[in-house]
Amino acid sequence: MLPFKTLIQVDKKSKYPIYQQIANRFIGLIQEGVLQPGAFLPGSRVMAAQLGLHRQTVVAAYEELASQDWIISMARKGMMVAANLPVIKPRSFKTTAVAYAQGPSFSFNAVPKLEMLPPAIGIRYTINDGFPDVRLAPLTEWTKECRSIVQSPRYTKLLMDGSDTLRKEMTKFLTNTRGLNISPDNIMVSRGAQMAIYTAAAMLIRKGDHVITGSPNYIFADLCFEQLGANIIRVPVDNEGIDVDAVEKLCRTKKIRMLYVVPHHHHPTTVTLSAERRMKLLEIIRTYKLAVIEDDYDYDFHYSSAPILPLASADHGGNVMYIGSLTKSLGLSLRIGFLVAPARFIAEAGHLRRLMDLRGDNLSEEALAAMLQSGAIERHLKKAKKIYHERRDLLCKLLMDKLDNRLQFTPPSGGLALWLKFPEHLPVQEVAEKALDLGLRMSPGMHYHYQGKPGNALRFGFASLNDRELANVVGILAKCCK
Amino acid sequence: MLPFKTLIQVDKKSKYPIYQQIANRFIGLIQEGVLQPGAFLPGSRVMAAQLGLHRQTVVAAYEELASQDWIISMARKGMMVAANLPVIKPRSFKTTAVAYAQGPSFSFNAVPKLEMLPPAIGIRYTINDGFPDVRLAPLTEWTKECRSIVQSPRYTKLLMDGSDTLRKEMTKFLTNTRGLNISPDNIMVSRGAQMAIYTAAAMLIRKGDHVITGSPNYIFADLCFEQLGANIIRVPVDNEGIDVDAVEKLCRTKKIRMLYVVPHHHHPTTVTLSAERRMKLLEIIRTYKLAVIEDDYDYDFHYSSAPILPLASADHGGNVMYIGSLTKSLGLSLRIGFLVAPARFIAEAGHLRRLMDLRGDNLSEEALAAMLQSGAIERHLKKAKKIYHERRDLLCKLLMDKLDNRLQFTPPSGGLALWLKFPEHLPVQEVAEKALDLGLRMSPGMHYHYQGKPGNALRFGFASLNDRELANVVGILAKCCK
Repeated sequence: MLPFKTLIQVDKKSKYPIYQQIANRFIGLIQEGVLQPGAFLPGSRVMAAQLGLHRQTVVAAYEELASQDWIISMARKGMMVAANLPVIKPRSFKTTAVAYAQGPSFSFNAVPKLEMLPPAIGIRYTINDGFPDVRLAPLTEWTKECRSIVQSPRYTKLLMDGSDTLRKEMTKFLTNTRGLNISPDNIMVSRGAQMAIYTAAAMLIRKGDHVITGSPNYIFADLCFEQLGANIIRVPVDNEGIDVDAVEKLCRTKKIRMLYVVPHHHHPTTVTLSAERRMKLLEIIRTYKLAVIEDDYDYDFHYSSAPILPLASADHGGNVMYIGSLTKSLGLSLRIGFLVAPARFIAEAGHLRRLMDLRGDNLSEEALAAMLQSGAIERHLKKAKKIYHERRDLLCKLLMDKLDNRLQFTPPSGGLALWLKFPEHLPVQEVAEKALDLGLRMSPGMHYHYQGKPGNALRFGFASLNDRELANVVGILAKCCK
Repeated sequence: MLPFKTLIQVDKKSKYPIYQQIANRFIGLIQEGVLQPGAFLPGSRVMAAQLGLHRQTVVAAYEELASQDWIISMARKGMMVAANLPVIKPRSFKTTAVAYAQGPSFSFNAVPKLEMLPPAIGIRYTINDGFPDVRLAPLTEWTKECRSIVQSPRYTKLLMDGSDTLRKEMTKFLTNTRGLNISPDNIMVSRGAQMAIYTAAAMLIRKGDHVITGSPNYIFADLCFEQLGANIIRVPVDNEGIDVDAVEKLCRTKKIRMLYVVPHHHHPTTVTLSAERRMKLLEIIRTYKLAVIEDDYDYDFHYSSAPILPLASADHGGNVMYIGSLTKSLGLSLRIGFLVAPARFIAEAGHLRRLMDLRGDNLSEEALAAMLQSGAIERHLKKAKKIYHERRDLLCKLLMDKLDNRLQFTPPSGGLALWLKFPEHLPVQEVAEKALDLGLRMSPGMHYHYQGKPGNALRFGFASLNDRELANVVGILAKCCK
């Protein structure tokens, strides 16, 4: 008889019943080839004595094994390991334990990647690239709406079927704030702007297609297009935004699949596309029937003047896919974005979204819809905008006072970040390394140029830092720039 | 002078300031070519009189336009439409309004789709394909954990940076319940199983690759592989699950990119892959270094006997990508799934997930981690399992009592659904049409065969219906099967 006492160890403290532990161990022994097909197991009385357990426990384990077809009860002969299991060689007991330490032995596609910031261990401050301040989030209203939905009779139906309320409320919100002329059929709700970018791009890009983006550009958009097989062509971004003449020249000479543009507070540089270039771009869109993703990720935050209406509100023949997000507007952990496009495009995009992410978080979507309807979102935006405006001004002042023009910047007209350019003799990577030693984590530049060398600049998200924090962070930065 | 009184209409009830409404309308007029570059605007006094507004309002509008570069203040001459705007032809005023009613004029990729059930208008009951009962969800514990996280000092950091707690807790949970030997490096958290399937498949499939699935198969997996360009080869599914001999034959003759298998409660048929076939399949995986997605979507619900350990717990050389979900286990609107694979695969998959969906809902993920740690999930599963077990038994009894063997089924050993086969003379599509008239919505079969003809069967999700509802639903079904 096999040394079952050694082979089968029972953990009496485990929350799993002992009979189940025994059954699972037997399965392991069969799989490992220790127990061969056709072998008989000791009777339950004998086995119970070996293992020092009650006989009923062993009987239960055997029943479990039989119900799973691993063993068969042979009349008057006892329990036999199923004979029709394929013959297997005995294997080391360790093999199963290391399954995920090895392999895989199949090959898989590489994903274009981005180096991430070091983990926040021992870190006091982080300069992010433009987060809202989650401490300002309208948590009370949010909780109130969630509770009221959960207590309503429609809750069950809602969780199973979802509802169109959010699309309807978003239609109103986008019409009122962005001058779009749309109906709910023109909206797909996504998990944040990123999923909207991925979905729209996946609907368009085939391997080798030319896609135009700015230089520099929002890196997660670039990576997304690369992942989908695009050949990215870059055009310069200057103080007026993306170079639209360069875009037109490309349209004249090449088959261009798509243009990705961030006309408000361009990511990362925060410049706004000038009116002249907007007009010219609309003309290009109409002439070349150019497909455009307009990523208007932080339209809702504007300080100096009202925001410029998006390309999507003008005459583009349905060729502008307008993308944005309420994630930053809400400032909670919830991620909700949108894609606006002609109805037949949205219908297809919705199918694709379903293949990636069966459905959204229905409760959260409904609560957000209620907050759009009640005006809570608008009230929150008003309040947050005022605070972020002050923080932008404070940051500009601190940078001028404490850094004596060592770093260059233009105050952004809106958005949650400021673009800070470093002089050549002061590489941002060295500054970032020094800062880390002083408890400040910031991007060492690799997030702004993906191909070629990293940009010598920093996208300084100011919205999530309060006055005291801003002062401390700029203080550390000043020390590191000496 | 242009008839500005007609061209510029102000809505005094709008929540947007009047100066902004005027500025936006001017932009429209410039974009539409009504106001040409170089044209001068009437002085603010004149314009104010025309529009019947206070002069300061017009001044504010002009300032707004100037700050956006649409107009330029010319010394002593007043405001001029910027001269460097591209010359444009006058256009109908309606063009901007219909931008999203037309187009797009670019072409885009089709997405393999699925006809959805009709909307639930006037519907009393829905037979879904295996949802949990959201009325049983542990809402109190959930709310408690969320509140405690929101009130803790780590909340801000958590929302910005996320945490690894959920991966750690999932590692423990999967080790304890599934016998996996893994570390947090082997887990990617996703939005439900669907995103894990899409991500893993997108890492593997290139256009034209052969992918093996069952016939029938979970349709959203099939659609996902098709979307990614796979050539799907189907092998039969019988009472013992997928035909693994057919799989081996294919591996011998063709380059197979991947196999998708649902060994527990196969979707849609609910059969379990027999022990013999599991062993054989593991051998095939090792021999052919076959990449396998093991979709174990409702492992946590088992009634008759303990569930069989997944392929992922055995010796597969790291080639089994194990996918599952806590969405059904929790029964809230929250979607959280997982992908288990070797660490270097997970690292790449994590990058891809980030391109589709920048980050998860950090608050919800942390709350779920806390519920795994406190044992609340396990307690809930225990309670829910008992209730679903009773509902399964009741459904079987009702089907036998009220349908007199007109429909065929095998009680499923676990899961949240039962596979009901209709006889040839009773097409499920006709039954579904009759049922809709009686207030019952059910799939007319198109969800079970995608290519070829739809299956004459129904996946009857019993978990979300209580005793009374089950009786009523089966009552309606019996009427429609006469």
